[in-house]
Amino acid sequence: MKLSFSPASPFARKVRIAAIELGLIDKIEFVPETVVPGQANEKYSRVTPLKKLPVLMLDNGDVILDSYVIVEYLDELAGGGKLIPASGAARWKVKSDHSMLQGMLDSMLLCRYEQMVRPEPLRWKAWGEDHWNRAWSGMARFENQSDMLSRPFDVSQIALTCVLGYADFRFSDCGWRKAYPKLDAFHEKMLARPSVKISLPPAA
Amino acid sequence: MKLSFSPASPFARKVRIAAIELGLIDKIEFVPETVVPGQANEKYSRVTPLKKLPVLMLDNGDVILDSYVIVEYLDELAGGGKLIPASGAARWKVKSDHSMLQGMLDSMLLCRYEQMVRPEPLRWKAWGEDHWNRAWSGMARFENQSDMLSRPFDVSQIALTCVLGYADFRFSDCGWRKAYPKLDAFHEKMLARPSVKISLPPAA
Repeated sequence: MKLSFSPASPFARKVRIAAIELGLIDKIEFVPETVVPGQANEKYSRVTPLKKLPVLMLDNGDVILDSYVIVEYLDELAGGGKLIPASGAARWKVKSDHSMLQGMLDSMLLCRYEQMVRPEPLRWKAWGEDHWNRAWSGMARFENQSDMLSRPFDVSQIALTCVLGYADFRFSDCGWRKAYPKLDAFHEKMLARPSVKISLPPAA
Repeated sequence: MKLSFSPASPFARKVRIAAIELGLIDKIEFVPETVVPGQANEKYSRVTPLKKLPVLMLDNGDVILDSYVIVEYLDELAGGGKLIPASGAARWKVKSDHSMLQGMLDSMLLCRYEQMVRPEPLRWKAWGEDHWNRAWSGMARFENQSDMLSRPFDVSQIALTCVLGYADFRFSDCGWRKAYPKLDAFHEKMLARPSVKISLPPAA
């Protein structure tokens, strides 16, 4: 299997952490890829017209996306029910938490594109603030959700770790640790895992 | 159960079609909701900080998101394996196709926000074109994927129907029927289903 990858992508980091935790990291060849919004990226657009990272390319030619479906696929390869509860209310809770965190990451990337990639005269403050607020109030939601911080390791905890790591990477002045001390404690706890530590984004 | 809903949302339409096909439509109360990008939408942001439609609110207070996870949940309620194959390669194919279609819809919405919602002097042509091209070349992918147009009814076919309906609704001059005749035939076939016909977006 091959995975399109960038160390700066929080979505690719999620899959990398999952692959390590599931014991599958040695089965995956990481293929470096760079995608620039607003440009054609023609080669990678033949792999996926969405031009998003990561996708998993199987040996038979099938392509699996998005990052969440890849984690589900790897989880099943590893026997199932490892990072996503196999049934019951916990399953829907983890999936819904993950969807919220995925949406927060989407908003953080839109916010970064607005502030850093879009030509300066074309920036719309209300749009950037709206998307930052979605991520920020999402963090508040998880600060007050005690089970997230204590329950067994799962894909939504990986996603929360990637949200916080991306906040450090691209919004280093946002002050999330001061605003959300329980998330800070959660993040410190996650950093004890080699999978989390080795996959920290590069220096910005 | 309650579902936050707008007849203009292609994501909400997907859940509505699924609920009808699964025989669960009478169990769901549709709660009208309007979300304007770049505005606070304070009331709905207390339901979900992402402020995206739809979310499913269960009677016990749990909230299920996003639209795909809601369809999975409803599919399980209906016995499982109805709109998403329960196992095997077909399962990952349908999930990956759905993820691609979901990304195409995300790009179409970004394109619309760029062209219609963002103040005119702040529009960035390259960004809008990039996102339109993701959707357009995604359609080309499905035009050439014959199994999508012939396999048993599933969630990715619902999503493709919603992509094409949204193209008619918001990009009525794009000419997808002429460019993609197999998708046109697919869409006509889908329109024979009452669930698809009743959920067509309103006149733009």
